[in-house]
Formats: sequence, C-alpha cells, structure tokens
Amino acid sequence: MRRPAVGVFDSGFGGLTVLKALLQLVTDADYVYFGDTARLPYGSKSVETVARYAVQAAHYLESHGAQMLVIACNTATALALDRITSAARVPVVGVVEPGASAAGLATRNRKIVVVGTEATVSSHAYRKALEARGLQAREKACPLLVPLVEEGWVDHPVTEQVARIYLGEAFSDGFHDADTIVLGCTHYPLLKPLLARVTPGHVKIVDSAESTAREVANRIQQLVAEAEGEERRRVPRLKFFATDSTEKFQRLGQRFLGHPIEGVEHVDLKE
Amino acid sequence: MRRPAVGVFDSGFGGLTVLKALLQLVTDADYVYFGDTARLPYGSKSVETVARYAVQAAHYLESHGAQMLVIACNTATALALDRITSAARVPVVGVVEPGASAAGLATRNRKIVVVGTEATVSSHAYRKALEARGLQAREKACPLLVPLVEEGWVDHPVTEQVARIYLGEAFSDGFHDADTIVLGCTHYPLLKPLLARVTPGHVKIVDSAESTAREVANRIQQLVAEAEGEERRRVPRLKFFATDSTEKFQRLGQRFLGHPIEGVEHVDLKE
Repeated sequence: MRRPAVGVFDSGFGGLTVLKALLQLVTDADYVYFGDTARLPYGSKSVETVARYAVQAAHYLESHGAQMLVIACNTATALALDRITSAARVPVVGVVEPGASAAGLATRNRKIVVVGTEATVSSHAYRKALEARGLQAREKACPLLVPLVEEGWVDHPVTEQVARIYLGEAFSDGFHDADTIVLGCTHYPLLKPLLARVTPGHVKIVDSAESTAREVANRIQQLVAEAEGEERRRVPRLKFFATDSTEKFQRLGQRFLGHPIEGVEHVDLKE
Repeated sequence: MRRPAVGVFDSGFGGLTVLKALLQLVTDADYVYFGDTARLPYGSKSVETVARYAVQAAHYLESHGAQMLVIACNTATALALDRITSAARVPVVGVVEPGASAAGLATRNRKIVVVGTEATVSSHAYRKALEARGLQAREKACPLLVPLVEEGWVDHPVTEQVARIYLGEAFSDGFHDADTIVLGCTHYPLLKPLLARVTPGHVKIVDSAESTAREVANRIQQLVAEAEGEERRRVPRLKFFATDSTEKFQRLGQRFLGHPIEGVEHVDLKE
C-alpha cells in the first residue's frame, strides 16, 4: 500500500504556508500542490467565478492521485467549499472551520477579529463559523495586504501604516477589547511579526495554516496507517503545478514555503 | 452605411479611461468594451498567459461587430500586440506607440521616465518605442499603485508615500533631470493630481489614454466618412462585457469612465 497523497489547492503562492505547516506535522504523506497563478487573485472576484475555478483545480488534483483535498485558500473555502465538496470524489478540508476552531480555543472573552480579502469578508463565512461556536466576530477586509506581501514589503513602514489603518478600524466600535485575531488569508502569516507590533498587546494571533494542518493530520491517520514499511518511512514527495509562469512560482513560492521549490510544471486549464 | 463600431479591450476597468478619452474625441462611432475582470490583473502575469487571454478577447469583440480594436491595456499591448494583430481580422491600435509619440512631443531634454506594471516594464516595450525615437528611457514598475487605486485611495497619504518611494527610485542615477513621465498603466490617470505633487515641478505628465484616442481618431476617419446622415449625427451607442461580476463592473467602472455605466453583460470565455 502506498502512502496517501494530499492535494493542496490555492489561487497562488499563499497556500504554500499551509503546505509548510503540513510538511512539519504530517510527514507520512506525499503532496501535490496546485497554484492557479494565471487567474489570481481570487480575493476580488465573484462567487461564481471562484467556484468554477476551484472546482476545475479540485478535479485536476484528483486526476493526479490526490486522496484528500486541502483548500488552502481562504477565499475559495469561504465562497466555494460546498461546491468543491459536492464536485469532489475525495474528502475536502477547508481553512475556515479549522481557523474558527482555533480562535475558539484561543479567546477568553469570546470576541474575535477576522482579517481577510474582500471576497472572504463579503461571504461572512468566518462570522458564521464563529457565531456557530457562540463567539462574537468582527470581519475586516484588507485588500492592500496581499499586494504589499507580493511586493516583498513584509516589514516596511508603508505596510505598517496600512495595517494600522485597517486594524484601527477593525478594533473599534465595541471591538476595542477583542482578544483574538484570525489571519483569514494565507498571505498574512508572512506579516505576523509586523501584525504583532500593530495589534494591542493582549491579542492572540491565530494562523489558520497551523490549525488546518492539525485537522488534516487527524483526518489522514487511517490512510497513513494503511501505508506499509519502507513507504512509511521516506520523506514526502512534492509535486507543484502552476497555471502561470513556473519560473515566477519557484522564485516567489520559496518565500511562502520557507525553502527552495523545484520541478514546477505548467498547467493550462483548457481555455 | 452604419457608423463604425470600435472594440475596446482591457483586463478590467482601467481601459475605461481610454474609452472616456475616445468618447470626448471620436463621437461618430459606437463602442463595445470588453473587461476581462475574472482574470485581472494582467500586470503580474506571463507573456504566454496574457497573449492567450488577449487574443480570446479580441475575437470576442470582432464577433460583436468591432471594425477596429483598441488594446486599452498597457500590459496586453506591451506583451501581446503582435500576437493580437496577427490574430485579428480588423486594424488594431495599442497604447504604447501613441504614448511614446506623445512623450516625444512633450520632452525637451529627451529623457523620459515610464511607470507601469511589473509585466509592462519587464517587456521593455516602452523603452524600445522611446529609444526608436531617439529618446532615453527609464522604466519603473509600480505594482502597488493599481491596488491602491482599486482601494479608492487615490488621494491618500499612504498612496503619496508609495508614489514618493517609486518615483524617488525612478528619478535617480542619471534621471534626476528627466522632464517627462509616461503613465504606462490605465489605472494611473486617476492618480494624476497626486503624481503631479510628487514629481519634480518641471516634469510633464503624459497620459497614453489621450494620445491613443487621437491615434484612433486619425485612423477611423475613413470608416466614419462612410456612415450616412442620421446615423452620423446620433450619440455613441455603448455596450459593455465583463467576465466577472457585472454589478462590480458598474460600481467600480464609473470611477474610471467618469459617468454611470448601464447594461453590463456577463461573458464566460469557455473555461
């Protein structure tokens, strides 16, 4: 019996922060990553468009042997998890539920701020998931943070100023005392040190990449247990697919994954 | 004989600044606008991807009666004008050549700064067009300006700080005395007042939207002359197509066009 293969999907590079957490936590699996870089960003697009793109990507990963799918994109999870789950033949894990669970464990006063893209916030997927756990939620769209991360300004005075403006608005009007902030976009973990400076001192930062990796670890145990001897002990195989430039994927991707990326293959989703 | 129809293509909303200039200058034509909003932005994508998308859009506009195509997107012009021109059956006008010509008329010391997206700058389409006219060119990618315009921060201290950083780098090392700046992206005309504050006082700002409209006016005269009586005198008919949300196109588009937009139709480019 071979080791299980996990398909990780994102609109671009951000999902590599989830893959990074998976590689630390679930070493008994292989990974296939799909970045829809030709059509990113998803964060400013409509439900219909994001759902169509995400279902295409899910099928692509299944056709490359994925036995479980991780939707490592907050926007795709927030807008289209139901559609992806219906369309897929294998189990699907999104990032919103694990993020909401982790926030529930972290908070004391049950008041949570969620930051994300325009589309994620408009869907209110986080608010619904948090309110279902009896938590109060304030969602705030931060559309400039993704381009700032992609410009490489992860510790730049301009980014700090922008973050102060966004978080100032988020932690206002009854949410001054919120004690937890959920990073509802896979680009934001790169801003963790900066966000820690900008948020009030008592606030805990929840990164859904880590909580999603834990959820996958729980769900995959049975598949891992079925793998045999030699297969079990070796290091994970990694395979990357991107819809835009593979060179750019390698170059930018390593910032998110935290180590070099090799062998990216170009995919053209029948356009 | 009917009035000529001009097809205007952009990755999103920015090309509406070119349509705005056309409506002021060429009133004897009808217009069909195509915004590939589901797949924007083009500015961070590769040549292959941008060319494929742009050729699809060109064919779509031709199938809707366009007798001339205006590639109102600097990135698509810079990366794919040749490919679009080869694929199209009607004349094609890009924004780079008209922008370079206008810069040639504006400059005295023949030193030009061009600002644009990462993809436009990497193609060096502007530098080539300017050097062919015996002008010296410095190109500078400003990837944060498009998201700042789309956030609505067209007159915001953060945008001014970002512009100062980008232009400070552009007007350095032998280009301190450049006397002309070309706005090589259709989002940037919305930043004209801010950029006028940030650039040195002696610098002229060239907006390729206006120079492109003049080029279309010259080229279209014969088609216009063939239109008859009543047809000639009425106001332009406008038709808009977008690949993402039509509601969002109407809402954001009016900032660029300068007046309300109605009747946007959704297009799905066979994915």
